[in-house]
Amino acid sequence: MTKLHDDIILMGQRGKQAAIETAQLSIEDRNTVLLAFANAIQAKTDKILQVNAKDVAEYRQTLSLTMQKRLELTPIKIADMINSLRALAKLPDPLADRDEQWQAAAGFKIVKKIVPLGVVAMVYEARPNVTVDAAALAIKSGNAIILRGGKEAIRTNSFIADILRKALNQLNYSEDFIQLITDTSHDSVDELLHLRKYLDLLIPRGSGSFINHVVKNAAVPVIETGAGNDHIFVDQSADLEQAIKIILNSKVQNPSVCNSAEKLLIHAEIAHEFLPKLFSSLIEAGVEIRGDEKTIQIDHRAQAATDADWDTEYNDLIIAVKVVSGLDQAIDWISQHTTHHTEAILTKSAENTEKFMNNVDAAVVVENASTRFTDGFEFGFGAEIGISTQKLHARGPMGLSALTSYKYEIFGHGEVRK
Amino acid sequence: MTKLHDDIILMGQRGKQAAIETAQLSIEDRNTVLLAFANAIQAKTDKILQVNAKDVAEYRQTLSLTMQKRLELTPIKIADMINSLRALAKLPDPLADRDEQWQAAAGFKIVKKIVPLGVVAMVYEARPNVTVDAAALAIKSGNAIILRGGKEAIRTNSFIADILRKALNQLNYSEDFIQLITDTSHDSVDELLHLRKYLDLLIPRGSGSFINHVVKNAAVPVIETGAGNDHIFVDQSADLEQAIKIILNSKVQNPSVCNSAEKLLIHAEIAHEFLPKLFSSLIEAGVEIRGDEKTIQIDHRAQAATDADWDTEYNDLIIAVKVVSGLDQAIDWISQHTTHHTEAILTKSAENTEKFMNNVDAAVVVENASTRFTDGFEFGFGAEIGISTQKLHARGPMGLSALTSYKYEIFGHGEVRK
Repeated sequence: MTKLHDDIILMGQRGKQAAIETAQLSIEDRNTVLLAFANAIQAKTDKILQVNAKDVAEYRQTLSLTMQKRLELTPIKIADMINSLRALAKLPDPLADRDEQWQAAAGFKIVKKIVPLGVVAMVYEARPNVTVDAAALAIKSGNAIILRGGKEAIRTNSFIADILRKALNQLNYSEDFIQLITDTSHDSVDELLHLRKYLDLLIPRGSGSFINHVVKNAAVPVIETGAGNDHIFVDQSADLEQAIKIILNSKVQNPSVCNSAEKLLIHAEIAHEFLPKLFSSLIEAGVEIRGDEKTIQIDHRAQAATDADWDTEYNDLIIAVKVVSGLDQAIDWISQHTTHHTEAILTKSAENTEKFMNNVDAAVVVENASTRFTDGFEFGFGAEIGISTQKLHARGPMGLSALTSYKYEIFGHGEVRK
Repeated sequence: MTKLHDDIILMGQRGKQAAIETAQLSIEDRNTVLLAFANAIQAKTDKILQVNAKDVAEYRQTLSLTMQKRLELTPIKIADMINSLRALAKLPDPLADRDEQWQAAAGFKIVKKIVPLGVVAMVYEARPNVTVDAAALAIKSGNAIILRGGKEAIRTNSFIADILRKALNQLNYSEDFIQLITDTSHDSVDELLHLRKYLDLLIPRGSGSFINHVVKNAAVPVIETGAGNDHIFVDQSADLEQAIKIILNSKVQNPSVCNSAEKLLIHAEIAHEFLPKLFSSLIEAGVEIRGDEKTIQIDHRAQAATDADWDTEYNDLIIAVKVVSGLDQAIDWISQHTTHHTEAILTKSAENTEKFMNNVDAAVVVENASTRFTDGFEFGFGAEIGISTQKLHARGPMGLSALTSYKYEIFGHGEVRK
């Protein structure tokens, strides 16, 4: 066994120990920790920016502009982190007040008690804000966390994790509430995938292929998040002016995220009228358009889409357009290409909406609104762990309760089974 | 690709198609199906017994007595199946009346809608009653199911599946609500483990090592069930007469199941008084006792336990006993050897119960009652899918709601994100 293997086992053991402590903190104590984090980050803002500048400088040549933007911290981004911590401290306790209890026929009392999951791990790309965010969400819900961020952010992540661990130490808590894996090789991820005895949940955040790798290889429980090849179907009866606004917002407002639209399906009956207007707006907004044969026949400003396009999440200012014969073909097409994230219909037909919503298998199905609303804050959850594209445990935008489970407590008086 | 691979893909596709249909059945229609199943089984009782007799005859030499009992159907067991179907038809709809809805700050309406999972697979041992039970639970909750039972029961399972499929056909429903895999090689299980595009859940039922194999190798979502290395800790303050009754019931009432007790931890202060009395009762009930060194010193009727004993689920009339210094050692020991199923404390100290329940990480933690109460029917759920030993989605005894998920439906009026 390698040193890395032993190191990660040790982190698992320390995490389990820490999780017993976090699970028993009162909500006041958990919130005190979050506020201490906020103060500690605030006091070290300049230092964090200095350390982050080194990470950014090292990867300026090799990272895409989008990835650079994610890696780079600014005073505003750090202020956002601090505000998020303080806002999180104000949210209700995800462990409180939801216990159910009843008396079994055999006589004993059963309490269904909400409990933290225990030890949660998060594997993510070079986004240092996730380090703070994930640690805070874990502690708010009574969990310990093991973090494994992208290699490009290793200086920033290590520095931030140190700040948080010192804040824990000053409050006389175990520093192991938060542990950061500093080995940024693939091996450390693979060790986490098999840390079954100690990890209660692993949440991967990153590219679709990375998440696929995790889901296929993990022996630990995983929540799939984030892959979003989101479609918008524009029905024959759609309000076409409104449709252009919704499509533009869904594609352009933040193209690098999983709830941005990637594909358009256009009802054949309106394609000739609608596509030229739509394309003018998209091109003006800097969007590259790819299309199927019929689309290009109608408006040659679209380039030919390849087979691969229909399953690609661009996360960029690109969109692919297909003309469909109607609702049924749209549903069939989506069922072949959906990542089960967000799928939208623009229509005036309540009947078509109902059929679309019943037959499309996605976490969020949308009628006449932007796909960008698939978001924990927009939903009013006050926090977001990620967006689950699986059906077990948690689906769609996940609030703090996604980091909880329950246990049954039986209080007996000598009952035996007949 | 093999023919088996193609066959199972095809079953996945058919399952998905069927699941669209099952999801839209009213609760009245789903209950009608269950009652039709009951009538069809009843009409074919004699034939089922004849077919089952062939399975039993073939494996009389090779199966353990316990396994033979599970494989063998009797008129009483078939009457139980029929009664279970009729009782299930009377249970409330797991898809009904739990939808939440609210208005988002941006204006649109969000409906959190309870939906079936879709296509569920169950892999199980040679227990033909599971074929009926699993199919019925799936349909009651609006799902389609793919069944893969043990090879010893293949004639019985095929015959029963045919009866159920014909009943569906007579009601003009798709027979593919229920599909049975007749290939009983390991390959068919491995194909299921990778049927990611079509399976929404796989539930393995069987030995601990089989479930481990499934969890480690599955790319599809899995709920771990059933492994139960359940401990009872007898505290210093326990009512010792009551303790003997609870231990006997926990071990003897049905030793082959996951909620039977497998290990005893005895507080050192009471061991000399308690063990001889306990052992006399256990031996009288036919239980073989294994013990650690201290146990054997106190009562030599226990044989020496090996290291492997402490992690073995006997599922038989065997129990292993260890003397511990007190609550803390009991908790530590359990944390090393628990399968997170059911763990019990016998005590008069509410303080010790609280510490035990907070620190022992199991689906069900029990004070002063039999471990055998970890059961969906005893809990009052009216049905049981299995007993989950994981923390995500469902934990402990699972009722029908474990076979449901939810989706978010957004109803907008042109809203876009700011």
